[in-house]
Amino acid sequence: EYEKMPRSAKGLEGAGEWHVFKALLPDLRNKSVLDLGCGFGWHCRYAREQKASKVVGVDISEKMLQRAREMTNDPYISYIRMPIEDINFSKEQFDVVISSLALHYVESFKAVCQKVFTCLKTGGAFVFSVEHPIFTCRKEQDWYYDDHGNRLHWPVDHYHSEGMRKTAFLTENVIKYHRTVSTYINDLIRSGFNIRAVKEPVPPEKMLMRLPEMKDEWRRPMFLIISAEKT
Amino acid sequence: EYEKMPRSAKGLEGAGEWHVFKALLPDLRNKSVLDLGCGFGWHCRYAREQKASKVVGVDISEKMLQRAREMTNDPYISYIRMPIEDINFSKEQFDVVISSLALHYVESFKAVCQKVFTCLKTGGAFVFSVEHPIFTCRKEQDWYYDDHGNRLHWPVDHYHSEGMRKTAFLTENVIKYHRTVSTYINDLIRSGFNIRAVKEPVPPEKMLMRLPEMKDEWRRPMFLIISAEKT
Repeated sequence: EYEKMPRSAKGLEGAGEWHVFKALLPDLRNKSVLDLGCGFGWHCRYAREQKASKVVGVDISEKMLQRAREMTNDPYISYIRMPIEDINFSKEQFDVVISSLALHYVESFKAVCQKVFTCLKTGGAFVFSVEHPIFTCRKEQDWYYDDHGNRLHWPVDHYHSEGMRKTAFLTENVIKYHRTVSTYINDLIRSGFNIRAVKEPVPPEKMLMRLPEMKDEWRRPMFLIISAEKT
Repeated sequence: EYEKMPRSAKGLEGAGEWHVFKALLPDLRNKSVLDLGCGFGWHCRYAREQKASKVVGVDISEKMLQRAREMTNDPYISYIRMPIEDINFSKEQFDVVISSLALHYVESFKAVCQKVFTCLKTGGAFVFSVEHPIFTCRKEQDWYYDDHGNRLHWPVDHYHSEGMRKTAFLTENVIKYHRTVSTYINDLIRSGFNIRAVKEPVPPEKMLMRLPEMKDEWRRPMFLIISAEKT
């Protein structure tokens, strides 16, 4: 099912938040890049198209990494199978660390922040997207409907109760970790990062026009994207 | 009606978010402090109790300022009647600018950010609370109830549509301005501020125990508090 999603089939241009994520990335030319939760490797290949010198993609799924490897034979991209929580790269190894919609699967965001801070060079950037805390707070993670199936509003509950959410995503049971907006930001600051930008993206106009169901994306925040710098 | 609220009658200790706001304030001893939307002047008097050298309180309501003046004759607190948007203090005049639950009444947060940045000294702090964007997004600004009057959840809608909300607050019609979390943060960053902390406070344990209706404060974010620094 994951493969059928526009973001999987069409790559980055199929993802409604990519235009915002992309705009936050620094110039990647001659940079060493780490991608946490790289999946099919779309962001790794994008980094190389932007002339990154070296890209490392980390993902827990061997199946996804296999697909990523099939899509390129670029010797400057290496894929490592590992839970994001287990990364242990040497100090100041990367110029840029990115992560797209993966860190809400990780129990301790704080631990990841500290590891990313360590492996980034001074002046390096950490740019990541997660499902928005308003999206992850209830385990149902769905609209509230009237009796006729119309979307009435997005229901929020349990916002301040951080932790595990057993949710259904594309027919499968998936474990996510809910954190508040303030926890994401303060964990970064406490790890030493400087906040450069916080975004709650909506899909681009042309995508809203083409896919009418996307108009509901204006009604509640779906993604949170943060750009932070090791100063 | 405003006078009957715990925060008006009991002052700062009656406000569920005060313990978090207070913890973000720098040491106020010998500091010059500006309070935007000072109301009855609780924060101004607190600053003087902390040995601030000079405090200026700004509020649009003459009635509130009159009450504030009645409560103290401290010559080092001056009250100015003025809309927050109209402040025009000289450069680098204040060490600390605070604002408690006032800036969601201001149309342009960006304009206020720039003015605060100008009148703050380098190293100065801007600490403010607003109603949380999850609270302000719908004009109803209320829980969603079942037929028996039970609170089902907090409904979110129109989140990305920033601007005016005509709401009812304590029987009066009040105009507020909804902005997203990201707008609050990015307007600060673009004005030159460094984000020090972002908080979504819940009332302290002892208040939750005393006032049972406060347990719902765990269910959705009600306030947003940001501490920013002019570096």
